[in-house]
Amino acid sequence: MENKRKPYQLVSREWKKENTVINLKNTSIGNGNITVIAGPCAVENEDQIFTICEFLSKQNVKILRGGAYKPRTSPYSFQGLKKDGLILMRQAADKFNMNVITEVMDTNLVDEVAQYADILQVGTRNMQNYQLLRALSKIDKPVMLKRGMSSTMEEWLLAAEYILSGGNDKVILCERGIRTFETATRNTLDLSIVPLLKSVSHLPVIVDPSQGTGIRELVEPMSIAAVAAGADGIMVEVHNQPEEALSDGAQSLYFDQFSGLINKLKVSTAAFGRSLDVETEKILS
Amino acid sequence: MENKRKPYQLVSREWKKENTVINLKNTSIGNGNITVIAGPCAVENEDQIFTICEFLSKQNVKILRGGAYKPRTSPYSFQGLKKDGLILMRQAADKFNMNVITEVMDTNLVDEVAQYADILQVGTRNMQNYQLLRALSKIDKPVMLKRGMSSTMEEWLLAAEYILSGGNDKVILCERGIRTFETATRNTLDLSIVPLLKSVSHLPVIVDPSQGTGIRELVEPMSIAAVAAGADGIMVEVHNQPEEALSDGAQSLYFDQFSGLINKLKVSTAAFGRSLDVETEKILS
Amino acid sequence: MENKRKPYQLVSREWKKENTVINLKNTSIGNGNITVIAGPCAVENEDQIFTICEFLSKQNVKILRGGAYKPRTSPYSFQGLKKDGLILMRQAADKFNMNVITEVMDTNLVDEVAQYADILQVGTRNMQNYQLLRALSKIDKPVMLKRGMSSTMEEWLLAAEYILSGGNDKVILCERGIRTFETATRNTLDLSIVPLLKSVSHLPVIVDPSQGTGIRELVEPMSIAAVAAGADGIMVEVHNQPEEALSDGAQSLYFDQFSGLINKLKVSTAAFGRSLDVETEKILS
Amino acid sequence: MENKRKPYQLVSREWKKENTVINLKNTSIGNGNITVIAGPCAVENEDQIFTICEFLSKQNVKILRGGAYKPRTSPYSFQGLKKDGLILMRQAADKFNMNVITEVMDTNLVDEVAQYADILQVGTRNMQNYQLLRALSKIDKPVMLKRGMSSTMEEWLLAAEYILSGGNDKVILCERGIRTFETATRNTLDLSIVPLLKSVSHLPVIVDPSQGTGIRELVEPMSIAAVAAGADGIMVEVHNQPEEALSDGAQSLYFDQFSGLINKLKVSTAAFGRSLDVETEKILS
Repeated sequence: MENKRKPYQLVSREWKKENTVINLKNTSIGNGNITVIAGPCAVENEDQIFTICEFLSKQNVKILRGGAYKPRTSPYSFQGLKKDGLILMRQAADKFNMNVITEVMDTNLVDEVAQYADILQVGTRNMQNYQLLRALSKIDKPVMLKRGMSSTMEEWLLAAEYILSGGNDKVILCERGIRTFETATRNTLDLSIVPLLKSVSHLPVIVDPSQGTGIRELVEPMSIAAVAAGADGIMVEVHNQPEEALSDGAQSLYFDQFSGLINKLKVSTAAFGRSLDVETEKILS
Repeated sequence: MENKRKPYQLVSREWKKENTVINLKNTSIGNGNITVIAGPCAVENEDQIFTICEFLSKQNVKILRGGAYKPRTSPYSFQGLKKDGLILMRQAADKFNMNVITEVMDTNLVDEVAQYADILQVGTRNMQNYQLLRALSKIDKPVMLKRGMSSTMEEWLLAAEYILSGGNDKVILCERGIRTFETATRNTLDLSIVPLLKSVSHLPVIVDPSQGTGIRELVEPMSIAAVAAGADGIMVEVHNQPEEALSDGAQSLYFDQFSGLINKLKVSTAAFGRSLDVETEKILS
Repeated sequence: MENKRKPYQLVSREWKKENTVINLKNTSIGNGNITVIAGPCAVENEDQIFTICEFLSKQNVKILRGGAYKPRTSPYSFQGLKKDGLILMRQAADKFNMNVITEVMDTNLVDEVAQYADILQVGTRNMQNYQLLRALSKIDKPVMLKRGMSSTMEEWLLAAEYILSGGNDKVILCERGIRTFETATRNTLDLSIVPLLKSVSHLPVIVDPSQGTGIRELVEPMSIAAVAAGADGIMVEVHNQPEEALSDGAQSLYFDQFSGLINKLKVSTAAFGRSLDVETEKILS
Repeated sequence: MENKRKPYQLVSREWKKENTVINLKNTSIGNGNITVIAGPCAVENEDQIFTICEFLSKQNVKILRGGAYKPRTSPYSFQGLKKDGLILMRQAADKFNMNVITEVMDTNLVDEVAQYADILQVGTRNMQNYQLLRALSKIDKPVMLKRGMSSTMEEWLLAAEYILSGGNDKVILCERGIRTFETATRNTLDLSIVPLLKSVSHLPVIVDPSQGTGIRELVEPMSIAAVAAGADGIMVEVHNQPEEALSDGAQSLYFDQFSGLINKLKVSTAAFGRSLDVETEKILS
């Protein structure tokens, strides 16, 4: 689709024709199946994370999301449980044989987060935090790079290029909505970028319809739409008590909504000739 | 999803619970089936429009799109065949038993366009041309209201409210991409607005992935994604010779791409428990 | 500053090196002096418009603004006094020897508005209403073309090109703020476009800080900043009772604020080596 | 202007009525005078920075800007001289009795940058790098917080609140343009935010017309407009050989353009009843 000389190289299809596959315990991202990543916005306490993790485990979800270090717009908002949150996520995930993805906000935290997480996430506010990207290029764990809320595709791919050019080729892209004039949704989920990314880059692409829309009821249709657009997976927020959540309650799914979503996704992905990773055999720990 | 008092009324679900259905010759919009509207960006000559119309007719497409009066950014660009274009579209559509949708750009043209078209389209640049909306509120033909390229959902629904409050309740909404900072795609197709619109309004919602993305290769995935998001149909640009098109060639599908799209859509819509209107029996003229 | 081939011609400095000057009764726009256009958002009644007009006349303002046909987002908002508003504006302006500028919303209204107004204004929602632009290209009155709220400079100049290429070279550009993600102000006033416009085009440029910011207190600093940026004038909303205004009260100046603005502007423009048109001798009728 | 409860506190005028003044060697920011900060985009070599610094010193500029650690969109672009750049800036500034402002990109670099700089700058990409903001809240040097390219005023003030609430009240805000759909300028300089910020906050506000417009010829008019809008100063890029600059050459002023700007600014600021800090007596080292 694009013929002009691209400013990025290692992330491009021209450089590497085959899809990059990220191998994790029990599952892979980018192998053709649709990955489901789920969990609360933030780890709040032991009971919360274990309850959610157990529920997700029964749904055969393989990757638990949750924030331990939280980048909050206000210094007075809940900032996450920090290291305690990391420990709780790891314990819950280990008990239920799941993988952990969580955000790393600073170069000083890379080692600590890498100790507990299976995938390190770079948040939208740090997509162009180049020192952090360089630090992540030196570790041997996958990195999920969320799109900056006002980043063009080219800037996003160049941010990924920082990680690959530093030596870490295990990068996953995550579309999470961009900032526009529209306020009816929290962000504007840019699904068109998904097939465009798949065309110009070999990296797997995850879509986050929870952050992307900010409205719980839109998560199901936009998850299916994301898969229809060619995404390799979705990341959704689920909470045992959304109305009590310390952050992002309005966009977190109730458990029964999540089960319903999985059922709908199974049917749709089958129609697209693909499978959900939650449909693959569960490997007991 | 929204509880604050809304500034619109007649277009809302609170006012009318049941979906609005627009009845046309051989088909309906908003009745649960997925409508396929297709045709060239602009009517260019008799051979072109008849060739395209015949092809679409064989695909059982029921609604032909095409521009006769074209709103072009530059006064020096091709401005459309005007009345001659309307006549050609009508003749082609009649020969192949199809409906015609085309844009009306001005109050002075409402009568003329209404004489030849089955659906009158308001383009993105005229969404807040209130004199035009008022004129269209007085006719007895359906109106498709494209979203202004920088219009919020609320402004869009209020524009529709102009038409309904004037007496014409046959309004179709069309999402065609909004203007953002991203330049990798021509516009940013806002699919999240589709389920939100379906929730707050009873009006049918069509998605235009050709205008929305500006890139031919993205039309198929975004068409399927649009249906996944809950759209009542899609409108796509098709041309017998896209590379020779007088406008929007880069986003127009080749005939074989269009056939492929229809096949993919049939499978997906079935998975969503819906059907394409092109799958319904063709009524011979 | 720009060397690539431009898609517009007649509006460009390459085409016409000298500044375009719009001659009106008692004053000119674009002749080096700073033009002050002022008045209410909408004409509401005889008392209101005469009171405001008399006040402005005492300030030696030469051009009265006011809406008779109002493009309102909601069909249920005050839509203007229409022809009665035009007549009232004309009467008030004639009594106090001023010029009238008011918006024309539709081709059907061009003759009527041209009968009463000295300058016809195209509003932001109609900047790409090409039938209207063509109609205005055939009249012998100046046209003020407000920037579309999501229009690039190039699209704006091409809209102006529609008017010039049709035969009317009396075009004034008006920056009135663009739509962005920022909601602290009603729009984002793009003052950088002013010196850029002055560099690439010979047309006069007016700035509207009332629409541009939506906040009364910002009108004074942004008026001075507009002149500092090189604008040929400003257009501001003034009301005798802003808190009672039927539209845009929050951005309308009180009389004493307007007097204060004029005093500040006199000092600043003098520092820039220019004069306000209100400082020129008042010609009695 | 705003009466709703604000989410920020320490940065607000309600909390502290008097303007915050940042005291530096030979000058102050926010004391009523207009501060001029100038220098190259990046320190490139000893000759370059000393040549520029000497020139600026003759203009009586008190604060030298320059990048040592450069956040570049591409990993393959010049990334700055890093520590060597800091040392060169310090040496040049000391020789000519000036202050140094330079960007700090990461928590790990705070100590190093604080050792050489008089003001630490947070760049637009790091405005919501909260770990960095927290680290800067613990140092005893002023911090200049540039606006995130898609940050609302509220998000910006909340980022400043991170620094103040951590214990550092020496914060300067810098408007440097926001990201919009307009591509004629590099960013859209949001001057309306200046008087709004001055109204709601006690912090000094600097405007960067070089980054804000990306076009050398616009720097002078937008600098004067910034002062007209109420800014406490400007930050501009100057280079001895803009056409040879390793970054941002197109927006860097030539020496004679800078001298011209200072002369124009002197006249304008006098008209506004203010003075440039370059007009104050130079204190010899």
